[in-house]
Amino acid sequence: MSTRTTDLSSLRSTLESSSLGHEIYSLIRELYPICRSITGEGFRETLGRIRKEIPLDVHEVPSGTRVFDWTVPKEWNIRDAYVKNSRGERIIDFKRHNLHVVNYSVPVHRKMSLAELRTHLHTLPDQPDWIPYRTSYYKESWGFCLSHNQLQTMGENEYEVCIDSALENGSLTYGECYLPGENSAEVLISCHACHPSLCNDNLSSVAMATFLAKYLGQAQLRYSYRFLFIPGTIGSITWLSQNEDHVNAIQHGLVLTCVGDRGHITYKKSRRGDAEIDCAMAHVLKHSGHRYDIESFSPYGYDERQYCSPGIDLPVGRFSRTPHGTFPEYHTSADNLEFVRPFALAQSLAMCRKIFSLLENNKTYQNQNPKCEPQLGKRGLYRAIGGLADAGAREMAMLWVLNLSDGFHSLLDIAERSELDFDAIEFGARTLREHGLLKECAQGAA
Amino acid sequence: MSTRTTDLSSLRSTLESSSLGHEIYSLIRELYPICRSITGEGFRETLGRIRKEIPLDVHEVPSGTRVFDWTVPKEWNIRDAYVKNSRGERIIDFKRHNLHVVNYSVPVHRKMSLAELRTHLHTLPDQPDWIPYRTSYYKESWGFCLSHNQLQTMGENEYEVCIDSALENGSLTYGECYLPGENSAEVLISCHACHPSLCNDNLSSVAMATFLAKYLGQAQLRYSYRFLFIPGTIGSITWLSQNEDHVNAIQHGLVLTCVGDRGHITYKKSRRGDAEIDCAMAHVLKHSGHRYDIESFSPYGYDERQYCSPGIDLPVGRFSRTPHGTFPEYHTSADNLEFVRPFALAQSLAMCRKIFSLLENNKTYQNQNPKCEPQLGKRGLYRAIGGLADAGAREMAMLWVLNLSDGFHSLLDIAERSELDFDAIEFGARTLREHGLLKECAQGAA
Amino acid sequence: MSTRTTDLSSLRSTLESSSLGHEIYSLIRELYPICRSITGEGFRETLGRIRKEIPLDVHEVPSGTRVFDWTVPKEWNIRDAYVKNSRGERIIDFKRHNLHVVNYSVPVHRKMSLAELRTHLHTLPDQPDWIPYRTSYYKESWGFCLSHNQLQTMGENEYEVCIDSALENGSLTYGECYLPGENSAEVLISCHACHPSLCNDNLSSVAMATFLAKYLGQAQLRYSYRFLFIPGTIGSITWLSQNEDHVNAIQHGLVLTCVGDRGHITYKKSRRGDAEIDCAMAHVLKHSGHRYDIESFSPYGYDERQYCSPGIDLPVGRFSRTPHGTFPEYHTSADNLEFVRPFALAQSLAMCRKIFSLLENNKTYQNQNPKCEPQLGKRGLYRAIGGLADAGAREMAMLWVLNLSDGFHSLLDIAERSELDFDAIEFGARTLREHGLLKECAQGAA
Repeated sequence: MSTRTTDLSSLRSTLESSSLGHEIYSLIRELYPICRSITGEGFRETLGRIRKEIPLDVHEVPSGTRVFDWTVPKEWNIRDAYVKNSRGERIIDFKRHNLHVVNYSVPVHRKMSLAELRTHLHTLPDQPDWIPYRTSYYKESWGFCLSHNQLQTMGENEYEVCIDSALENGSLTYGECYLPGENSAEVLISCHACHPSLCNDNLSSVAMATFLAKYLGQAQLRYSYRFLFIPGTIGSITWLSQNEDHVNAIQHGLVLTCVGDRGHITYKKSRRGDAEIDCAMAHVLKHSGHRYDIESFSPYGYDERQYCSPGIDLPVGRFSRTPHGTFPEYHTSADNLEFVRPFALAQSLAMCRKIFSLLENNKTYQNQNPKCEPQLGKRGLYRAIGGLADAGAREMAMLWVLNLSDGFHSLLDIAERSELDFDAIEFGARTLREHGLLKECAQGAA
Repeated sequence: MSTRTTDLSSLRSTLESSSLGHEIYSLIRELYPICRSITGEGFRETLGRIRKEIPLDVHEVPSGTRVFDWTVPKEWNIRDAYVKNSRGERIIDFKRHNLHVVNYSVPVHRKMSLAELRTHLHTLPDQPDWIPYRTSYYKESWGFCLSHNQLQTMGENEYEVCIDSALENGSLTYGECYLPGENSAEVLISCHACHPSLCNDNLSSVAMATFLAKYLGQAQLRYSYRFLFIPGTIGSITWLSQNEDHVNAIQHGLVLTCVGDRGHITYKKSRRGDAEIDCAMAHVLKHSGHRYDIESFSPYGYDERQYCSPGIDLPVGRFSRTPHGTFPEYHTSADNLEFVRPFALAQSLAMCRKIFSLLENNKTYQNQNPKCEPQLGKRGLYRAIGGLADAGAREMAMLWVLNLSDGFHSLLDIAERSELDFDAIEFGARTLREHGLLKECAQGAA
Repeated sequence: MSTRTTDLSSLRSTLESSSLGHEIYSLIRELYPICRSITGEGFRETLGRIRKEIPLDVHEVPSGTRVFDWTVPKEWNIRDAYVKNSRGERIIDFKRHNLHVVNYSVPVHRKMSLAELRTHLHTLPDQPDWIPYRTSYYKESWGFCLSHNQLQTMGENEYEVCIDSALENGSLTYGECYLPGENSAEVLISCHACHPSLCNDNLSSVAMATFLAKYLGQAQLRYSYRFLFIPGTIGSITWLSQNEDHVNAIQHGLVLTCVGDRGHITYKKSRRGDAEIDCAMAHVLKHSGHRYDIESFSPYGYDERQYCSPGIDLPVGRFSRTPHGTFPEYHTSADNLEFVRPFALAQSLAMCRKIFSLLENNKTYQNQNPKCEPQLGKRGLYRAIGGLADAGAREMAMLWVLNLSDGFHSLLDIAERSELDFDAIEFGARTLREHGLLKECAQGAA
């Protein structure tokens, strides 16, 4: 990693360059063929690839470890799987698509009739060309997924069914990238990395988070940033269980999912609903000029379910484009390399950068000349000729900052109240600070 | 009264049966001919009939008793009243309709010209077929009410005017039905029973309250329920004056009026505006699938004026269909047996049952596994095969209850926040409680 | 000043008489020709004229006095100014219009080319007939203002430029009219009086404030009233700086600007946003039957900028018709005697009277019979015949006052909650008070 000499704003042009979207997309393409699950070699191989881009601590938590109400499951690995017809042809072949096997299937190898096999087959009658994605993590079972069209062609036959998998004591693996900042208060960025061969959900976030961490690592940061690459649900539960004493350091957080499709950005608020991350996101989206949606918190979703459980209750929202479960390609073979687009990946990353830049700069100040306005003119901050109808935009921003910097309003509060963009308010505050007219309040004072 | 073995929910089918509407209607028909007033034999006779259905304490408060700023008036009784023309024909006859006499008219018996009589006659020029209802409780006076059409036919004549009434020291009578529950916190249901021969206002409520009490008496109840059958205004003032030390026990209350007409349900909020009864009513009406109105509190109306006076300030709302004063038949002879309908009476009663059922079950819980979600799957409460887009409705309800059961949200709060029906939330909570995942908070903790 | 024998309401007919609009207008006409600035003889002459109408303390603050972050500037006076062409003709002549000279121009007297002169000339290309108004208070400079059409006619020439002004140590002058009331809590009315030959901004307010003070001086008042006639910005800063210990007495305040044009009334809320003056203004405007606008506070504007600076934070709003800066005539020669209208001046004054009348009467009461309603009938306050659908308007107002007079609701709160006009509520309260049913709460109790 290079020396950190630039602040977050200076990275803007790099992060918004169109080539960045293609870099993220290339990483997705590399990771797509790997068969991941919530444990096992596929997950490890994925972390190995990420580690080429960013510093990553890889943790292994043994099967059987109690994590709150849950238990780390056995480790699952798979070498091969198929269904052969009586002519020995592989009519369903795991080597052709990772989704063909129900994730966490136990080993099986025997012959059976169509009737028996049928109860282990999953299809999507409404989307007859697509292979569904199914899992059975916590109940020992096996199965195959295939397109409904293919199922229709399967006649009575003696089928040879083989799943060459292993479900044994091992460990759950996760990756953690920690970027220390000026103080120990943290921003958490979490994405699940357990889905096999599904691009938007969630290789898009895995790849985008990797590049976000890579570039944040080059900046001078106020907050420390912690990126988690974890299996869904059991991963966040495991991390929270093993870091319970640490969660108080987390000031803001985002769960990233589905950040690569063509749809507009959707933000789901934290359980608190009015956390700083929620307000920051609403502000940035409102001023973005793009379509967007903001959803209230609900207890269904991805790992925000755990971060926002009542005994944890972190200010963690979820950043997506089209939310999981609301697009037809979700959890099917159609969530493929065509479904995610470089421009969308670049735009998602740029939006995250803007959010973090806002959080970095969202300080609370005390006006050092609170009784009447300071004379801006004698400091060269106000036009000399009077009588004009309007103050300039820069002057307005400074007047708002001066008027509301009473120790009770952050710059974001001021931006919201004035209906000016945060960047304009922040620029005004910087000017005033340089002229000794503002003093930063002690952290946590506002 | 039978043994209480069923809870309120089990009574549902009974209470919503169409035959119930007819039973309530039959009671109205029996009570309709009685000439009631705020005191006197008509009121006593009415309570006597109600007492055949439910246990009722009948209280007598002597004339002259001071009740806050008021004084219990003399008792009024009437035997006969008429206006005869010079041929001795009864052209206005109290025996034909109770409304023909101004309620609380002092005795009179003499002859007079039309001009003198005219100042004692009340009609409704805009509704020329109907007889108005008029009273003069607190100023000694007499008068007759008649249809405007009839007034038009009355020529110059020597009229014999007779009101054979008595206004003497006696007492004010009211009835009280108390159904003790598991704890001493109370639900108050109040209806005025002082109107003669008016069906919607307020025999509909008198009869519906009777059947509500009858059926609640068969249920296992958390709250105690107190039904008041009282004269309007002076009755609630008398009861509050004589039970001042007791009002703190009242947790929720409803004034019932006009519950039998064809219109939709209208709820008027308590003075507090955000009492639990207000929120419960809003929730149930919103999820009812029927049209409804909710009105803010105002200090004009029926006995909620007293229950919601600033020094009493009870959480008492008013439950009506079309509110009094807003339908033309109000306080006229047209508020008759045709004007109230069995289906409407049954629906009003069912809605009250639903409200009370909600209040009975609106508890506040503490999630016993607040750090991350509990593993519902291992308890058989979550589907085994993962990867589907949606959680089922039952699972969503459980997730909401778990997420918000932090001791600060009642089940109604959770229903409102989740936009799910209270019954679904309550069912989810019951399931979780049975699995040891919820514990009820001490009462009053939320 | 005459003896104070009438209360504010009785002055109503006087204040709304159409002749009053003409009286205010006449004063504007007298003051229009004077060349005012933020200091100097023009300002003193203006105060001298106002002093013929109302008692006025005139204060002189020496140049160089420190006032918070500012310094009282040198005093500016001007005798003559012109630009002559080579034929000795005055082509720009201060004697024809005060706006021809940039206010606070330093002395100059020499010949120059058009090119050199041009950098000192200000015009309005978009309004080619009008002369702009420009100032240079805090940077030593000189200049002329003229119509753009006139500028177009000025060819190459040797111009004789003369500004016969003086910028020397002297003082800043302001006027203060204090009307003592029953108690020392104050209402502040502030208007800037520093603009030369501009009618709406701000002679309209100077003249209207004069007549408002004149008539308030005849009334029996609860509050004390303080009227300030000050130079803009530096005047309010100076006053606040010299009266810092006194500002706590100010309970309500208005900055008056642009109160004479044909547009509708616009109120700009105080920084607090929910001060009593803000609520009172919103109520009165809502019930006025006229068009109006209410704006949120912003830190740009007139002297409310200083009164609402964070270290002062007084409940001072701004009362205008069309706000300064939003009409094309603003700060030009077109803001002249045609631009302000007597009817508008009279209406603005009537609205201010209504606001102050509300504030005078906006007391908080305690219902002396809070348990159930008092029996209004026995006091002659309620109709004798019952059974009617509606209470009268007077009865409704009394019921609202009784219901909400719990020591926590002012009469304005009650008017807002009941959606009745303040005057109706106040009349109801007065009636109840006269019957011993209300008692005023100690000031500051609500």
